[in-house]
Amino acid sequence: MSGNFESNLAKIGVTLPDAPAAAANYVPYVIVGDIVHVSGQIPGTMDGLITGKLGADMTTEEGAEAAKACAINLLAQVKAACGGDLDRLVRVVKLTGFVNSTADYTEQPQVINGASNFLAEALGEAGKHARSAVSAAALPLGIAVEIEGIFQIK
Amino acid sequence: MSGNFESNLAKIGVTLPDAPAAAANYVPYVIVGDIVHVSGQIPGTMDGLITGKLGADMTTEEGAEAAKACAINLLAQVKAACGGDLDRLVRVVKLTGFVNSTADYTEQPQVINGASNFLAEALGEAGKHARSAVSAAALPLGIAVEIEGIFQIK
Amino acid sequence: MSGNFESNLAKIGVTLPDAPAAAANYVPYVIVGDIVHVSGQIPGTMDGLITGKLGADMTTEEGAEAAKACAINLLAQVKAACGGDLDRLVRVVKLTGFVNSTADYTEQPQVINGASNFLAEALGEAGKHARSAVSAAALPLGIAVEIEGIFQIK
Repeated sequence: MSGNFESNLAKIGVTLPDAPAAAANYVPYVIVGDIVHVSGQIPGTMDGLITGKLGADMTTEEGAEAAKACAINLLAQVKAACGGDLDRLVRVVKLTGFVNSTADYTEQPQVINGASNFLAEALGEAGKHARSAVSAAALPLGIAVEIEGIFQIK
Repeated sequence: MSGNFESNLAKIGVTLPDAPAAAANYVPYVIVGDIVHVSGQIPGTMDGLITGKLGADMTTEEGAEAAKACAINLLAQVKAACGGDLDRLVRVVKLTGFVNSTADYTEQPQVINGASNFLAEALGEAGKHARSAVSAAALPLGIAVEIEGIFQIK
Repeated sequence: MSGNFESNLAKIGVTLPDAPAAAANYVPYVIVGDIVHVSGQIPGTMDGLITGKLGADMTTEEGAEAAKACAINLLAQVKAACGGDLDRLVRVVKLTGFVNSTADYTEQPQVINGASNFLAEALGEAGKHARSAVSAAALPLGIAVEIEGIFQIK
């Protein structure tokens, strides 16, 4: 599965959205050498923003869907960082996933798997990354998940 | 606005403090190649430490001031990493901002904008960075905000 | 104390475990150039997993032991990343430590010192790192501490 990440995405039914713009005095990504640092992405979808708090008002499965939405937005930013050619992506290096949860919720990894599984499916070996999965007491706009990422490009 | 970041800082009324020392078996920054990783900075100011919890006992505006104080301390560390010459800073690459907040507070981005807006004002294009803004259940010493950063220098 | 980190570890009575495997569609570490990004490590020990919430049901000293356990697992991953030769480690660059705590707990740095002190003792100057120490509302499996790290190798 080398190259042609876009067609893999199409096969699994995912179309990358236009890269969401940053909303303030920061930018969606910064490139240093062959590394792209992507700002924390939120689970915005065509059906709206996925909000909620794990352990309170949404299931782990719903959280995993939110994580997948974040990962799709991360890839959209990487594509923009690559001047529109996602096949310049070498690999996903690192994700940090923040899960909006109650103090007694312990399935953060299963939530962030929504992102990790999607990236493995879409990108194969290039999608396998280091990661951390932790809870945040709260997240912007009440979103369920926020994920930032580091990517290597060519 | 290339070069002369120090004079820009003076124009906006900011004097960088001496770089706060780390308080334990770690260091304020580590340089690897042209990248500086700066330890999480706290909102220490000449008037003391800005403590509080967003959503409970301080306003978003007060939180943004705390974020600005963290950003000033980040720049002080970068200046130290540059051997005292801040103009060796190429750009701010990435910030991760942790906001001490209640579980239902959702204005983390507006808080961290206090740092982002300051960096854009002080450094122009070089100040524009990728970032994440999330809540922490609690922070050291009860501080309102903690921000870590990655910077490119020459 | 250049080289021979393994014998230093032996002197302080620490044997690195086999590197824990990742439990999902991600990997324990990713190498990019001379940098290793290690996934968030949990405080798994030969006596089991250290769980608990600081400020509620465990002491800061117990939290520091959990942080040390995370650091040992980080080094185990770095050793694996170095093909089994820990002396290829150049230095610890950055740690981010997440402490499972109540909303009013403020000794995150003292907890993460359990990792920082261990690394300084085991690795000397090479063990001194930039770091952040923050609270997480909750952590996977109820663990007390999770720490991710960035390392430089040769």
